[in-house]
Amino acid sequence: MRAVVIEAGSVVARERPDPVPGVGELLVSVRAAGLNRADMLQRAGLYPAPPGSPTDTPGLEFSGVVADIGPGVERFSIGDRVMAVVGGGAQAELVIVHERAALPMPDTLDFLEAGGFPEAFTVAHDALFTQCALRPGERVLVNGAAGGVGVAAVQLARVAGATVVASVRAPHLRASLESFGATAVDPAEAAAHGTYDVILEPIGASNLKSDLGSLTIGGRLVIIGVGAGARGEIDLLQLMDRRARICGSTLRARPLEDKAVAARLVERQVLPLVAARRVRVPVEAMFGLEEVDAAYARFEAGNKLGKIILDVSR
Amino acid sequence: MRAVVIEAGSVVARERPDPVPGVGELLVSVRAAGLNRADMLQRAGLYPAPPGSPTDTPGLEFSGVVADIGPGVERFSIGDRVMAVVGGGAQAELVIVHERAALPMPDTLDFLEAGGFPEAFTVAHDALFTQCALRPGERVLVNGAAGGVGVAAVQLARVAGATVVASVRAPHLRASLESFGATAVDPAEAAAHGTYDVILEPIGASNLKSDLGSLTIGGRLVIIGVGAGARGEIDLLQLMDRRARICGSTLRARPLEDKAVAARLVERQVLPLVAARRVRVPVEAMFGLEEVDAAYARFEAGNKLGKIILDVSR
Repeated sequence: MRAVVIEAGSVVARERPDPVPGVGELLVSVRAAGLNRADMLQRAGLYPAPPGSPTDTPGLEFSGVVADIGPGVERFSIGDRVMAVVGGGAQAELVIVHERAALPMPDTLDFLEAGGFPEAFTVAHDALFTQCALRPGERVLVNGAAGGVGVAAVQLARVAGATVVASVRAPHLRASLESFGATAVDPAEAAAHGTYDVILEPIGASNLKSDLGSLTIGGRLVIIGVGAGARGEIDLLQLMDRRARICGSTLRARPLEDKAVAARLVERQVLPLVAARRVRVPVEAMFGLEEVDAAYARFEAGNKLGKIILDVSR
Repeated sequence: MRAVVIEAGSVVARERPDPVPGVGELLVSVRAAGLNRADMLQRAGLYPAPPGSPTDTPGLEFSGVVADIGPGVERFSIGDRVMAVVGGGAQAELVIVHERAALPMPDTLDFLEAGGFPEAFTVAHDALFTQCALRPGERVLVNGAAGGVGVAAVQLARVAGATVVASVRAPHLRASLESFGATAVDPAEAAAHGTYDVILEPIGASNLKSDLGSLTIGGRLVIIGVGAGARGEIDLLQLMDRRARICGSTLRARPLEDKAVAARLVERQVLPLVAARRVRVPVEAMFGLEEVDAAYARFEAGNKLGKIILDVSR
């Protein structure tokens, strides 16, 4: 199979042996694979693959068709359209996923959209609901709102009856975010728009002070990325006075059972919204597998709404 | 009535007008009032009383006898033995408390113990169970374990089936803590004793790095005091990798409805343990109301197990 491989800090397409599904695993013929911040970190050598995942092929999410099944598989059959979050290896023509981590692909998504769905919507759903127990009527601030997770979070929070402020640096992306029902603002203005019950933070330490200062009593700040730095100072008295909390979450390092729980929640609570077209997956740009270096460059350039997708069927 | 008054950074007993109970309020003839870290901060002008509380008489907890009731009181009658957490004013011969914030005093406590029960056990219960959802079999680290909240937390965590490591600086207090079922250690050794699902932190920023480094996957750090500093650096990536959370909590600033909820939880979940003598309130020293300055000095000297109590009946 052809697979993206990290070589000396670059990504290139190379020939690799076909993987073989083990007990409970699916072999999936990948049609599309979304890019994520973690891929950039892995390419730079800063974020090694978790144990059990391919070490040199990145890719945390994909859509595709089941090409073969290992012993004991019960949930899927050859030919089924599936999508999933994996610990790595999705940026390839073939990928292995445990059937419990896989999601059925709704008819309302095409393969390209579905390739960018699992990571963004699972992280956003986990952060807003599992970590922060978002409730209707609450005010949510989504930072980095034009990214894959951001766009997913804005939509899920709106569906859940929350009021959403979406911060994004690029002014020309704000109209699109407003079309999803958010009030879109410059990051520097988020605090002036009020206080927040829940803040989703994919950017990291540079926003920490402003985030903590903007939490309501009982507010929750969830850190899902640290692209702009991991270390920051907090004021514990502020945390106490607000009875607030800061939590961190990442999907990639979780064991199979935790990933399976997150996948089942998305299956039950988000896929019906996809099927009803109440949420959608905006795709900013697509690249073929042989163009992976350009795809990563496009991701790093920012200034995009939604996902950068590798179209593996090209 | 005689009441403790803050004058130019000192505490003295002074004559003050008797307070009058309003709708739903009890007037309590105070028998004993526990000292807390917040009193020291208030005396130093660093922690003003919350709105609606006496501004110059400290005291967050007391035991006593209902002397009069305001209109509409339903839960208590004149002559009932009660104890409670209040926003201030407890270090006096008479105090006002809303009946929904008051607890009935179990027969197994005397007035001196009961005067040091409400704040410590409500904060410890709130932190361990309401904030951190402690479960049996989990490992808990209680820092500052010889303080009032610390001793309460050690006992509540043990009763709840947790394994407890109690850190305390003074070596001679460790045997007492071990008698409550904890493994008592020097604060510098806590991290060497393993990782923790829940860490109770009453000391503040100086322990932050060590606390975060000692959390398990899914671990919870709850900040309930900042005596050793409020500002500290955290590593957000560490928080993400562990899917951990930091929360802050304080009782004093909460509105009546939140205090009433916390009081009802203690009434239902902790008072039966007191009645069964499964938890107790260690009292380190007692002082009369006129000796309040010496009482504060004893509190500040540290090196004590459990509570410093003002014996208002003397």
